[in-house]
Amino acid sequence: MSTLREDMLAIGAAAREAARHVREMPTALKNEALRAIADELRARATIIQAANDRDLEAACDLSPALRDRLTLNWERVDAMARGVEAIAALPDPVGRELARWTVPSGLDIARVATPIGVIGMIYESRPNVTADAGALCLKSGNVCILRGGSDSIHSAAAIHEAMRAGQLAVGLPGDAIIQVPTTDRAAVGMMLEGLGGAIDLIIPRGGKSLVKRVQDEARVPVLAHLEGVCHVYIHTDADPDMARAIAVNAKMRRTSVCGAAETLLIDREILAYTGVDILSALDAAGCAVRGDAEIREVFPKAAAANDSDWSVEYLDAVIAAKAVDDVEEAIAHIERYGSHHTECIVTNDKETAERFLTGLDSAIVLWNASTQFADGAEFGMGAEIGIGTGKLHARGPVGVEQLTTFKYVVRGTGQIRP
Amino acid sequence: MSTLREDMLAIGAAAREAARHVREMPTALKNEALRAIADELRARATIIQAANDRDLEAACDLSPALRDRLTLNWERVDAMARGVEAIAALPDPVGRELARWTVPSGLDIARVATPIGVIGMIYESRPNVTADAGALCLKSGNVCILRGGSDSIHSAAAIHEAMRAGQLAVGLPGDAIIQVPTTDRAAVGMMLEGLGGAIDLIIPRGGKSLVKRVQDEARVPVLAHLEGVCHVYIHTDADPDMARAIAVNAKMRRTSVCGAAETLLIDREILAYTGVDILSALDAAGCAVRGDAEIREVFPKAAAANDSDWSVEYLDAVIAAKAVDDVEEAIAHIERYGSHHTECIVTNDKETAERFLTGLDSAIVLWNASTQFADGAEFGMGAEIGIGTGKLHARGPVGVEQLTTFKYVVRGTGQIRP
Repeated sequence: MSTLREDMLAIGAAAREAARHVREMPTALKNEALRAIADELRARATIIQAANDRDLEAACDLSPALRDRLTLNWERVDAMARGVEAIAALPDPVGRELARWTVPSGLDIARVATPIGVIGMIYESRPNVTADAGALCLKSGNVCILRGGSDSIHSAAAIHEAMRAGQLAVGLPGDAIIQVPTTDRAAVGMMLEGLGGAIDLIIPRGGKSLVKRVQDEARVPVLAHLEGVCHVYIHTDADPDMARAIAVNAKMRRTSVCGAAETLLIDREILAYTGVDILSALDAAGCAVRGDAEIREVFPKAAAANDSDWSVEYLDAVIAAKAVDDVEEAIAHIERYGSHHTECIVTNDKETAERFLTGLDSAIVLWNASTQFADGAEFGMGAEIGIGTGKLHARGPVGVEQLTTFKYVVRGTGQIRP
Repeated sequence: MSTLREDMLAIGAAAREAARHVREMPTALKNEALRAIADELRARATIIQAANDRDLEAACDLSPALRDRLTLNWERVDAMARGVEAIAALPDPVGRELARWTVPSGLDIARVATPIGVIGMIYESRPNVTADAGALCLKSGNVCILRGGSDSIHSAAAIHEAMRAGQLAVGLPGDAIIQVPTTDRAAVGMMLEGLGGAIDLIIPRGGKSLVKRVQDEARVPVLAHLEGVCHVYIHTDADPDMARAIAVNAKMRRTSVCGAAETLLIDREILAYTGVDILSALDAAGCAVRGDAEIREVFPKAAAANDSDWSVEYLDAVIAAKAVDDVEEAIAHIERYGSHHTECIVTNDKETAERFLTGLDSAIVLWNASTQFADGAEFGMGAEIGIGTGKLHARGPVGVEQLTTFKYVVRGTGQIRP
């Protein structure tokens, strides 16, 4: 009987082997496979829902919100299939010439986009991640090893089977998207060690504790975002209507996304009028306000914010509000308490806006637009696997282009180096 | 008395603080500081050489080659200063607009190059790395924490003092380049843990065991190359004179650089003529040849290569040679035994060349040019900190541009997300 370690190393070796043909797969064939996968997802909707029912039965102690996230109905299976078709319609990120130049020795140097290789995806709950991640990796010429949460194991297996069938339908070996067939948590640890050098990159998707564990334990590169403590800063020269609309949208459009605002900073000078107007609008929209002493003075309905409120990702209808002197104090606050995800300034003063955009070290900085635009599709980059807040490789939305690396292709005429 | 851990955490905090002003430093000021550093290096040449003498005295058991690497004479100090001036003359990599586009919502999105932040450099022996790394990091708006080898501690301290003096001379606080003032090996371990979140990236430079330790133990991203097992493949349609010239240059121009060829693959069809001619030329140039059975049949002077020869980085006047059937066997061999650094094909057949350039997953692939061109300066990228063979962030030469990351700057007119 083989051990878990042997099984996992075999998965790594199979992925490495598959990566050699997947990275050279022609664009048309990848797109054909993705469309076939979408067809298989729809054709197997009943099977997928039956598998999902088994997961739902087993998950009797989940909260209603998490149960809803786990549930797959026909509309959601169809949405998954449409998502895969949208990825098929994107331009192929592999083989793009990113730059090309000639050097004095006469060498013609090109920087060409190439797949990363083997990507390990470690994720929780929402079953559609299985289809999204598989399709994004295939499109970008990568092999992926998927390790979903135990809650959605049957749903993920049924979705994975559809993805395999889609590949087989167009004559491919069906080995580009690999699912770890066990819920044994030790398998995650082995993936974090790299499966004997097989894994080039780990992408975690899920709660803070999962991402933290991956970042702490991984022996291979990780592409992750820990959280989005996003800020909206209302400058003295903000248009009051625009400021209200952006603040309410940034917080309340969807409170559960990582681009939702968590902290509102308001210039002291406009606190009594524009400030109170914005806080009232948030309150009217159902948002609980927590404020510092100055905020509570002008808006007594606010609860008292304590120091920990400035670095919390509520992911809920709650906002922390604070008065600041000027753009410099706003920048200092965000640098101290933020998570380098997405920040917005509302102002009509171009110079102050540029100071904010330059002074902050966040993945996304916005001027006069809602933080809820922090999204690959809104950036015109297609579907995304997540929003990166690290400094290396990819920041901001991680779509198919960000799942590639590059190599230098150098063409000479017999040059030797003096 | 403070402990080593407290001291190291204080270094991390100081670096983080300095990073906030260094990342926004104007181009002219950075270049002025670099030129002042070059002046200080020359003005302190005697002091630097005296410090170097102390290192040389302490290092009585070094081999002559390592002693030579450690030695700083006037020419080498001047070369270091010229290196820093060359970095001053490079375009500023910070603030470059890497891409800009407008999306249907009307948002104007720009991808702008920004510094990485705090870079930890862990390196061995050659003292000039202190000046190179410090200058490259300052130019790219990063703060660096330098941890050199204990062999060159006094030389590095004197060079570091010159770099601090250069910053002070132009009115800067002198905190952009930080040296770890202890040879305690535990300090390296603390850097690999990130100094309490202060370090964004670790770059190791040195022997295989140092790089391996860093890759195994680091809890922060690492930019490294383990080794360069580089290949030259002579295809049937190679021009015999060009093939000989490239093979000899790739191996023998400098055998100690990571871009030096270590393995020669020759098409079976041309083994008896072109092959023997190349092997004889290598032998005449003072290179020891190790070959498989077929190589030894046509070139009996070759020693027998065993399986480990195919994955060794000799860094010496030794080459392993093997006969192959065709480009596919060459690709398979390189993928199996290579280190994804730099590979070259010599052929006049464009189709075969393109197959080689596409089929290999190496950082640099060359057609009809010596592997010794694997160098930032030869790529027109200026000075480099090393050649990356990893898949993430930067591959190939790592110069000032590769020491930056990017952020998205989004300009709106009041957009909220529907």
